[in-house]
Amino acid sequence: MNTSFFTTGKTAVVAIAFSFLAYTNAQAQEVPTPPKMVPEMTEFWEPEPRVVTPGNNNSAPSDAIVLFDGKDLSQWKAKSGGGDAKWQVKNGEFTVGKGDISTKRNFEDFQLHIEWSAPDQVQSSSQGRGNSGIFLQDRYEVQVLDSYNNRTYSNGQAGSIYKQHRPLVNATRKPTEWNVYDIIYTAPRFKEDGAVFSPARVTVLHNGVLVQNDVEVKGPTEYIGLPEYKKHGKAPITLQDHGNPVAYRNIWIREL
Amino acid sequence: MNTSFFTTGKTAVVAIAFSFLAYTNAQAQEVPTPPKMVPEMTEFWEPEPRVVTPGNNNSAPSDAIVLFDGKDLSQWKAKSGGGDAKWQVKNGEFTVGKGDISTKRNFEDFQLHIEWSAPDQVQSSSQGRGNSGIFLQDRYEVQVLDSYNNRTYSNGQAGSIYKQHRPLVNATRKPTEWNVYDIIYTAPRFKEDGAVFSPARVTVLHNGVLVQNDVEVKGPTEYIGLPEYKKHGKAPITLQDHGNPVAYRNIWIREL
Amino acid sequence: MNTSFFTTGKTAVVAIAFSFLAYTNAQAQEVPTPPKMVPEMTEFWEPEPRVVTPGNNNSAPSDAIVLFDGKDLSQWKAKSGGGDAKWQVKNGEFTVGKGDISTKRNFEDFQLHIEWSAPDQVQSSSQGRGNSGIFLQDRYEVQVLDSYNNRTYSNGQAGSIYKQHRPLVNATRKPTEWNVYDIIYTAPRFKEDGAVFSPARVTVLHNGVLVQNDVEVKGPTEYIGLPEYKKHGKAPITLQDHGNPVAYRNIWIREL
Amino acid sequence: MNTSFFTTGKTAVVAIAFSFLAYTNAQAQEVPTPPKMVPEMTEFWEPEPRVVTPGNNNSAPSDAIVLFDGKDLSQWKAKSGGGDAKWQVKNGEFTVGKGDISTKRNFEDFQLHIEWSAPDQVQSSSQGRGNSGIFLQDRYEVQVLDSYNNRTYSNGQAGSIYKQHRPLVNATRKPTEWNVYDIIYTAPRFKEDGAVFSPARVTVLHNGVLVQNDVEVKGPTEYIGLPEYKKHGKAPITLQDHGNPVAYRNIWIREL
Repeated sequence: MNTSFFTTGKTAVVAIAFSFLAYTNAQAQEVPTPPKMVPEMTEFWEPEPRVVTPGNNNSAPSDAIVLFDGKDLSQWKAKSGGGDAKWQVKNGEFTVGKGDISTKRNFEDFQLHIEWSAPDQVQSSSQGRGNSGIFLQDRYEVQVLDSYNNRTYSNGQAGSIYKQHRPLVNATRKPTEWNVYDIIYTAPRFKEDGAVFSPARVTVLHNGVLVQNDVEVKGPTEYIGLPEYKKHGKAPITLQDHGNPVAYRNIWIREL
Repeated sequence: MNTSFFTTGKTAVVAIAFSFLAYTNAQAQEVPTPPKMVPEMTEFWEPEPRVVTPGNNNSAPSDAIVLFDGKDLSQWKAKSGGGDAKWQVKNGEFTVGKGDISTKRNFEDFQLHIEWSAPDQVQSSSQGRGNSGIFLQDRYEVQVLDSYNNRTYSNGQAGSIYKQHRPLVNATRKPTEWNVYDIIYTAPRFKEDGAVFSPARVTVLHNGVLVQNDVEVKGPTEYIGLPEYKKHGKAPITLQDHGNPVAYRNIWIREL
Repeated sequence: MNTSFFTTGKTAVVAIAFSFLAYTNAQAQEVPTPPKMVPEMTEFWEPEPRVVTPGNNNSAPSDAIVLFDGKDLSQWKAKSGGGDAKWQVKNGEFTVGKGDISTKRNFEDFQLHIEWSAPDQVQSSSQGRGNSGIFLQDRYEVQVLDSYNNRTYSNGQAGSIYKQHRPLVNATRKPTEWNVYDIIYTAPRFKEDGAVFSPARVTVLHNGVLVQNDVEVKGPTEYIGLPEYKKHGKAPITLQDHGNPVAYRNIWIREL
Repeated sequence: MNTSFFTTGKTAVVAIAFSFLAYTNAQAQEVPTPPKMVPEMTEFWEPEPRVVTPGNNNSAPSDAIVLFDGKDLSQWKAKSGGGDAKWQVKNGEFTVGKGDISTKRNFEDFQLHIEWSAPDQVQSSSQGRGNSGIFLQDRYEVQVLDSYNNRTYSNGQAGSIYKQHRPLVNATRKPTEWNVYDIIYTAPRFKEDGAVFSPARVTVLHNGVLVQNDVEVKGPTEYIGLPEYKKHGKAPITLQDHGNPVAYRNIWIREL
């Protein structure tokens, strides 16, 4: 009795036998058992999930907005001033230059795929090595850092929600290799008076390894002091210039 | 067709007419609609909620553990050392004395009713006036303070989760009057390795007014610095000696 | 070093000695410990919670909207048609009459206090005895029923979220007595496309006893079949006419 | 003033200037502002996340338990009876044979990677085409189905939590290609009396596309009727024999 049960386009009349439990205690109180359902009662056909063609080898699925396809920074602008994003594009990647850059579009909830590579030249240590960052909604930073054989504070290493949540594990690849972040982000919601209705939440896979498991963001990333939410709407993805030539490539986003 | 529908102790055979949607698009794709259920399919008789006789005027319901009924501190012990709780009982209430006291029993999730009154003599200010505290599971403090016309830091006034969440409003009564806290508490859960599975959550009604709405406790209450969870099991309710003669009465708890 | 630490209105310069842990393992790897904070760093004075004067004996706090004060139904209208609410008011209470009634105001998140009494004449049984209901946002029903010595399906008795969540316990008073519901309600939120962002949540105290502990509402109350959310905004409180002369009194609401 | 601020192994004395807000209202009430923290106060070095070497091209990370590496079914057993898992292994994959198979190990929370392919021969339709399933903790099914150009009920297609949550989109590849599921699973927790403390939660990426976003599992998968949780502990992953020769390969799991 599967979907063939449906005599589509007609009206079917089906007899269902209901059986009941009876007399469950000494006082003969009657306690009915819910009648049995049929399988089709929990089969919902609408709405039909729309079809998405997945990408191969981390390439963008058909419904993604490609934020960088290896060619140019046309989807980005300078965070300060809003002029052209002037970081250098070469060989299908771009390298952190002067000043943060933000996407031209604003986003709320999303799935973000982004790849980054620490400079091939290993220089400095701790927060000084291969430091950049991905600011979700321009406020909440997923840390980018060369954390391969480079100890720093746990809540500031690669894959951390900077100064809020250390990654579950350190899955950073060597400087000469590319790292992949797959990020699932739920934006915070606010009440009319500005109070937080629900905080932002983030899941991060780092090179396919879960490093943030649906953690609650405490507020905008602060280098000094405790974070505190302020009401905001849709906002861009921002990449941080922290003075190190971190490279990025293959960036796409799906709105949720 | 209500509960009389049930022919208890027998077997009923019921004919149900299923109607289907058909041809939902131009390509005549067949999209069935789930067949209609009958009301009894969502009526569940078991388990039957057990009967509780509610109290009158804030007195304990029949299933509560009475922690103080006006007579003695037999349900309490000194927190330090575990000896007898030596705070003074008089006129159906008791007054904060030397050293914190804890319940002899340990608790996990619960509903707690507790009444307190600031000293009738208004003395000092801010944290120095009518200060005590109710430590849920011996760790997470719901602040007790004479916050009637007494400004202090918002996350340290009456009804706050001390240094974590300010109350939504200030519903404190005058020092000569009794305050009531009704607290709904969900204990934190931990993973085997000590990591937090789910943080503690608290709802507080202060004199019938909601002041904490299912807030997430950040960790054990700290006077200095940031809280950090440490794995623990069931634990007592602890009342704080902060040097002020705060009075308590009518305390009961229901395990959830 | 308490709040007296603050030399308000001036600028204080304070020397703090930071001590560090060193050499935490045999390889002499240096692992700093965060410097100690001072108490004031976790004391937040703004915003100051506004003052609310609590009521006595379940009367409305100063910031509540009184929906029924014993005199008239001026805060209510007929659900169907929107004309005057015509249920009979007498002796400070009103009794269910012809057709559901709704508040004139619409609400989102709130704390609701409402008292009800089953008819003094015990008649019929199960769902037929003392049946009415409180529809939060006109959709999500907290069941009103004479569940004193009156067995029905558990998820349909007094204090249930009708056909979704049975009450934790049965705290119903005798027909000749008044029952009190204190309800904390968080409205559902929706995405732009109508998908559920967060479902509604409800906590219910029945005569001071917790019967619903922050449960997730599955969708609008359905007598037949499974509930399914549909996007909506603010909406009224609706009281159900189920044909039984249930009485109501002392109704107030606080917007959250 | 970055990490070089730490003079490890010594004691640093740092002067910090605290500035305060003063006189915030006409009554000259004094409202202190929390003193400024230093960056190191929110930098936590312990515990250090352990190092995991990520895999390449979906291969297992260094801390994963490999459940199938292309060679044999030594990690599996027959679900019924517990004897050897007898599904056929060939060319680095195995094909659904007679009877469900389960892992020998039991799991609680985990990240699971699993690849599957519908039979190359497209036969039948709806639930009859390429049907199998992955039962998390032996109870909660992530549906496996050839949903490429094959309409069925939405909450029963590939990527659904069977009969509970339809996938956000349909990201199924053609029958001749391999599909990848990356699943993040949080087991339900129960109270001592068997009541649900927290339901299971699931996130699923299908071929890198988010199809389940931290959804709440309603209970064990039921073909007929409504699911209802029953208390359980750690449990295996089970693969379903639904009569179709679905192929699986490259299966690994990381305990969380």
